[in-house]
Amino acid sequence: MADSSAHLHPVALDKCYRLLNHGPTVLVSAAHGGRRNTMAAAWNMPLDFTPPKVAVVVDKSCFTRGLIEASGRFVLAVPTRAQVALVSAVGGCSGREVDKEVVLGLHYLGDGASDDAESTPRVAGCAAWLSCRLLPEPGLQQAYDLFLGEVEAAWADSRVFSGGRWHFDGHDELRTLHHVAGGHFFTPGASISG
Amino acid sequence: MADSSAHLHPVALDKCYRLLNHGPTVLVSAAHGGRRNTMAAAWNMPLDFTPPKVAVVVDKSCFTRGLIEASGRFVLAVPTRAQVALVSAVGGCSGREVDKEVVLGLHYLGDGASDDAESTPRVAGCAAWLSCRLLPEPGLQQAYDLFLGEVEAAWADSRVFSGGRWHFDGHDELRTLHHVAGGHFFTPGASISG
Repeated sequence: MADSSAHLHPVALDKCYRLLNHGPTVLVSAAHGGRRNTMAAAWNMPLDFTPPKVAVVVDKSCFTRGLIEASGRFVLAVPTRAQVALVSAVGGCSGREVDKEVVLGLHYLGDGASDDAESTPRVAGCAAWLSCRLLPEPGLQQAYDLFLGEVEAAWADSRVFSGGRWHFDGHDELRTLHHVAGGHFFTPGASISG
Repeated sequence: MADSSAHLHPVALDKCYRLLNHGPTVLVSAAHGGRRNTMAAAWNMPLDFTPPKVAVVVDKSCFTRGLIEASGRFVLAVPTRAQVALVSAVGGCSGREVDKEVVLGLHYLGDGASDDAESTPRVAGCAAWLSCRLLPEPGLQQAYDLFLGEVEAAWADSRVFSGGRWHFDGHDELRTLHHVAGGHFFTPGASISG
């Protein structure tokens, strides 16, 4: 898997909605009390431009949900074609049963070198990340499993996202994943303008 | 533009989330008091499996918003590559100022032949449609412009969606649209399995 950290650059907050605008499946990570976990979520979307907000569905069965509620934070990471097996594996087991870092080889940017890796766990090798503060809406979380967050920082791999745009040409392995069903994904293909 | 109505078939409600799972931009239509309108929305997602629910962001400036609130209904339609100019045009003007049916040539399935075309306006030529009952959440609508709906019926063009799956091969003009920014879209490309 390509090491994206060498190409990581900040994304301006007023452009960060574009990281999700085209509908990629994301990984949702959170940390609390010495545990970190990551789940897969096709059901996510931007919610506002300024300040930027996002929405994501997190089922009650998800171990990550408890970490989000306890810490008040989560990270959305946009995984790549090179990570398709990892995304399926992450989505196919629960942090209640396994430590995905040990079993799946999941690792995070800055591990061993930064406190950020503890509070803001960004899955290594992804194409983009949005670090979010939970907007607590207990009624919404309970009734609809719907979690809202304000994006406080965002980053992307400059090989495929710069100037506020995705540009995957020449980097097929870094194309985003769009879940169809049952572990089958589309990657972005031809561009077209209206 | 291909006439999709000849290939329209119902989609089982327990599979209708798959119409949105891969992150397409949708058209949102609603009707009330003899007016119909349609807007474009990249910010949408499935919200639940059974009963199926969806979420979509509808800004306070949108004329369609008033039609949704008044009628308690909306339709999400999944437009195609063949409709990219229509999608941009629909997103580029307001129903407050123009009648999009007159100015843009927007038309709906069953026009002139069915009462459904009045209460459940489905944009002709799309690849799929989800007819939704608004789940009234006034606080959520006001604070976040977030509208939730329960899907009561769904249909797709069987050339590209059948057996609960999208299959675009051989039908490039019916590929879904995934908005990047500024009227530029991706269409689904290579498939990959995890």
